[in-house]
Amino acid sequence: MLKKYLLAPGPTPVPPEALAAMSMPMIHHRAPDFIPIFDAARTGLKHLYQTSNDVLILCSTGTGGMVAAVTNFFNRGDKVVVVNGGKFGERWIKICKAFGLEIIEINVDWGYTLNPARLEEVLKKESGVKGVFVQATETSTGVNHDIEAIAGIVKKHEEALLVVDAISSLVAHDLRTDAWGIDIMVGGSQKGLMLPPGLAFISVSEKAWKMAEQSKIEKFYFNLKVERKKQQDNQTNFTSAVTLIIGLNEAIKIIEKEGLDNVFKRHALLAHATREAVKALGMGLYAKEMPSNAVTAIEAPEGVDGQKIYKVLRERYGVTAAGGQDQAKGKIFRIAHLGYSDRFDIITAISAIEMTLKTLGAPVTLGKGVAVCEEILL
Amino acid sequence: MLKKYLLAPGPTPVPPEALAAMSMPMIHHRAPDFIPIFDAARTGLKHLYQTSNDVLILCSTGTGGMVAAVTNFFNRGDKVVVVNGGKFGERWIKICKAFGLEIIEINVDWGYTLNPARLEEVLKKESGVKGVFVQATETSTGVNHDIEAIAGIVKKHEEALLVVDAISSLVAHDLRTDAWGIDIMVGGSQKGLMLPPGLAFISVSEKAWKMAEQSKIEKFYFNLKVERKKQQDNQTNFTSAVTLIIGLNEAIKIIEKEGLDNVFKRHALLAHATREAVKALGMGLYAKEMPSNAVTAIEAPEGVDGQKIYKVLRERYGVTAAGGQDQAKGKIFRIAHLGYSDRFDIITAISAIEMTLKTLGAPVTLGKGVAVCEEILL
Repeated sequence: MLKKYLLAPGPTPVPPEALAAMSMPMIHHRAPDFIPIFDAARTGLKHLYQTSNDVLILCSTGTGGMVAAVTNFFNRGDKVVVVNGGKFGERWIKICKAFGLEIIEINVDWGYTLNPARLEEVLKKESGVKGVFVQATETSTGVNHDIEAIAGIVKKHEEALLVVDAISSLVAHDLRTDAWGIDIMVGGSQKGLMLPPGLAFISVSEKAWKMAEQSKIEKFYFNLKVERKKQQDNQTNFTSAVTLIIGLNEAIKIIEKEGLDNVFKRHALLAHATREAVKALGMGLYAKEMPSNAVTAIEAPEGVDGQKIYKVLRERYGVTAAGGQDQAKGKIFRIAHLGYSDRFDIITAISAIEMTLKTLGAPVTLGKGVAVCEEILL
Repeated sequence: MLKKYLLAPGPTPVPPEALAAMSMPMIHHRAPDFIPIFDAARTGLKHLYQTSNDVLILCSTGTGGMVAAVTNFFNRGDKVVVVNGGKFGERWIKICKAFGLEIIEINVDWGYTLNPARLEEVLKKESGVKGVFVQATETSTGVNHDIEAIAGIVKKHEEALLVVDAISSLVAHDLRTDAWGIDIMVGGSQKGLMLPPGLAFISVSEKAWKMAEQSKIEKFYFNLKVERKKQQDNQTNFTSAVTLIIGLNEAIKIIEKEGLDNVFKRHALLAHATREAVKALGMGLYAKEMPSNAVTAIEAPEGVDGQKIYKVLRERYGVTAAGGQDQAKGKIFRIAHLGYSDRFDIITAISAIEMTLKTLGAPVTLGKGVAVCEEILL
């Protein structure tokens, strides 16, 4: 028997309460039974987002939410700044490019965080910047960008919107939408919210809604102005992803029961234990600065292929982690501590890594990383 | 106790086999376990679509598939013909308009089917028509359009693509994609395929792929050329809607076991029984021609509000049907016999309708419609 453990940075494991709720007989999205379900999901999301703004629910993956963020608030030729420190920074660039925005790219080396002073400088030099696009957690590198500092800078430029991809960091990190002034923040269901993929979330500030009035980019499926109107009546514009929204309510209940602050603390603790164990095992962290509490990118030991670690973890030990992408491929592997994750998930991960290193003939002291974890997690 | 019965034209009930499969622990869409699952879904869909073309799987509702059909194969200013015989014909118009296509609308009165000669005439008169958009089943009226005849006409116009919204009719009607020459056909998960909402399907002919080369409308989330390349490797461009695709495989297994031809026959028989029972109860069918085998739109008896029938059915008898939309609101109610539906679902529906009419003080002979159903279904 090979039991399966999912420790990839999304999709993440789904709690049994949510699985059970999503297995109930189907209900109709236009029937009155669905209204309180949708209403509860909206209210819960606002709390998780720490906002009094609308948080809209879309039936798509997180990327659909990113596309909505570009196509609803901007125009072709609009000058925007994109922070690009990995695969998902690149995605912002690709989306902005696809819809004809003029991009000022701030390139950040993989494994590093944006120095907010660089953004400040660009915004000082360039006039008429309409938006700043950034990731909260750059999933490909396991690095966070300092959204609070970035928000403080963008706030000084009245005409610019701050657009944050928080798909991997929602509920893993304390992201204060209203207090910091995040105009648009995109989330997804299959990460900290512990659900299957299929929902995107997007919060929109009043300033962003005003910009939306001037946006001429064609949209239909992701037309947020229409969605807003419908969702304020607890309906979606098109068919609702009924099961996922029912699951979302269960996930929100689990989070509320633990308390949002405790959820942040748990993610911080699990991430800390993971990082310390990795270091104790003599491996490096790929994130040289501001490591994420959602995912840890681990440098493969000298002479060991990161993709091989991923493969042995999965095939021999039943642990599905993630490999590296693009320029990080082969150099790293990634372990998530995200969503429905507790101390023994981390113990399992570190234990499986120790055994995998042994299997691959890499130098390792069995139990050394686990001991560090136990010390931190007891 | 009030047991719930879902008899609306989507979402439809989900079979326990699919619910169970979708309740299994989450797996990762980039891990090797997912490859055979995705491959089986693709192969199964091709069979249901009766095509050797690609059938792409999108994470969205059916409307996302409709948007993909417009944005991937056409250009702003392209002249297209749209058949508009109801709410979903209107949706084609809205989408084509949103992306700047030039629309020649063929208006069909609600409750009636397109006379194919009208299309032939329009295509003779107008030159340079790039596409013809139509519904197989117009869900709002319960009417089918004659896709075989329409395809025969469009085929004579080499430069035009036939684009069919088969969201409600896939597997309820025999739609021969390749044999008839349907270039693009859109389906959805929450109808005949018996799944929760969240997946759209789209088949694309070689002729349509050629047109795609010239399409300049911006797209990113629904970029079918990129999806095709990825999906031929059993991956999706963005995160896969893992659970729904696992459920899709179960639904396909159920359909294959019954046999696609038998599935068509079952839908035809259940629809026939429903219509005969409705007539025996002295009510009219809203579909004056070519009634759909997916959904029956029933005219409320003289002096009875259709929305009230919907309400009593739901609140007193636990049966969720659908009301009428827009100009049909109040005049009709709709009963689906779609997907995971057998004879006793129809008996339940007709029995609930009989009791509802009695409750509302409308003239009705209890058991009369049920007797007609039994006669047909035994």
